[in-house]
Amino acid sequence: MRITLIGSGNVATHLAAAFKNAGHTIAQVWSHTYQHAALLAYHVKATAAEHLGDLDSSADIFVIAVKDDAIPGVAGQLNAGNQLVVHTSGSTAMDVLAGVSTRTGVIYPLQTISKLREIDFRQVPVAVEGSTPDVARELHLLASGISGNVLELSSEKRLSLHVAAVFACNFTNHLYQLSKTILDKYGLDFDLIRPLIAETAEKVSTVDPASVQTGPAVRNDRLTMDKHLHFLEKEPELQDLYRRLSQNIINFHNKQQG
Amino acid sequence: MRITLIGSGNVATHLAAAFKNAGHTIAQVWSHTYQHAALLAYHVKATAAEHLGDLDSSADIFVIAVKDDAIPGVAGQLNAGNQLVVHTSGSTAMDVLAGVSTRTGVIYPLQTISKLREIDFRQVPVAVEGSTPDVARELHLLASGISGNVLELSSEKRLSLHVAAVFACNFTNHLYQLSKTILDKYGLDFDLIRPLIAETAEKVSTVDPASVQTGPAVRNDRLTMDKHLHFLEKEPELQDLYRRLSQNIINFHNKQQG
Repeated sequence: MRITLIGSGNVATHLAAAFKNAGHTIAQVWSHTYQHAALLAYHVKATAAEHLGDLDSSADIFVIAVKDDAIPGVAGQLNAGNQLVVHTSGSTAMDVLAGVSTRTGVIYPLQTISKLREIDFRQVPVAVEGSTPDVARELHLLASGISGNVLELSSEKRLSLHVAAVFACNFTNHLYQLSKTILDKYGLDFDLIRPLIAETAEKVSTVDPASVQTGPAVRNDRLTMDKHLHFLEKEPELQDLYRRLSQNIINFHNKQQG
Repeated sequence: MRITLIGSGNVATHLAAAFKNAGHTIAQVWSHTYQHAALLAYHVKATAAEHLGDLDSSADIFVIAVKDDAIPGVAGQLNAGNQLVVHTSGSTAMDVLAGVSTRTGVIYPLQTISKLREIDFRQVPVAVEGSTPDVARELHLLASGISGNVLELSSEKRLSLHVAAVFACNFTNHLYQLSKTILDKYGLDFDLIRPLIAETAEKVSTVDPASVQTGPAVRNDRLTMDKHLHFLEKEPELQDLYRRLSQNIINFHNKQQG
């Protein structure tokens, strides 16, 4: 397929490389910043376009990988004809593209994508949605070329997946950082915590997280929790998070037993 | 060394096996529940004791691995003479053992330990503390037999390490579970999130978490956060956590830039 990419961020960059590796042609790249488009285009042997209106409507598919709030504006400027137009957002309903083309859809790769980090796209779950069964089939096929784990999801289910990912990934990464902040303050190395982080993630690769929950909250060990809250006295934001997360653990496990 | 273990939970079980593997003798095991002591004693070829007062004071070291709030009571009943007495708690100061023996200390293995799961103790950081420099040296040596990563820490630094571990491990595991709860509600498989969990943990094995933070909060993407908060409307506890964790991410990264 001839694919035109709209966007030059993390998702656009990784998708372009994955499509290219799967044997597709990246026709054109557009970005809000022309230099970024030119750089990505150079890497995938495409041409960069300066204006959205300049994009060649002969591309088989337009893949919009820009910030969520920029999707409607960008989509509205495309001369897509009857070509396939998709976005790549977890939290944006497919119908934001209604009217842009007769054939629209979504390709949402569920991964924490950093531009400079290699990822094995075959392992990345990709959720697709199509405005018609034919479009869904076509997107399923396209996505299967880059990922071994493609599934069709409605906009609502895709949103639930994105929210779940924020909890499991974005929030956990921030907790890693809070942990590092505490260690820094006491002159301790983050390396001390790294084996624990690896083991915590590894444990849930085969079992439910609730079944391997450890720590003072799940034991309802008030003595230890009080020591920790006292320790965090001078960090009210951390103390507040500690209190709320612990209470949430207690409530969750009480409900399970009840 | 002849080691007597007080306790039969996760930490006692793994420590007993690790000491045994390192060539030490497990002399006796005591537990609040005699059957548990007998079972652990059987596995490490020790004898089980029914009463704390029955423990043979000829052991070189008494290792107390019971719940934090049970440590003072248990320690008070030992006839330890001048033998070494240590506890294994992250959040309990060493001086809780003052008066129990002239030689006291702490051996704190920093890992999320589940009884039924094999762990490679060589990779587990172990923090030690001794009531005298000689005791600290002795415990450092003993711990080096089971772990490749031993460090001497004061009670306060050990507490900071424990609090950091609660953020990086216990709280993150609970966030995995909340993520699963969301997916369950929409009939989606937790397997969809597992690659993301693995990648999120793997990323911070070499870099600082803050440098690889992704998601709507760090981008200050209000549109997406509002969609997610709206999605969580019927789950007020989840909605509240989402709001607070997102705000904490925003504040943290604003402070870094400011």
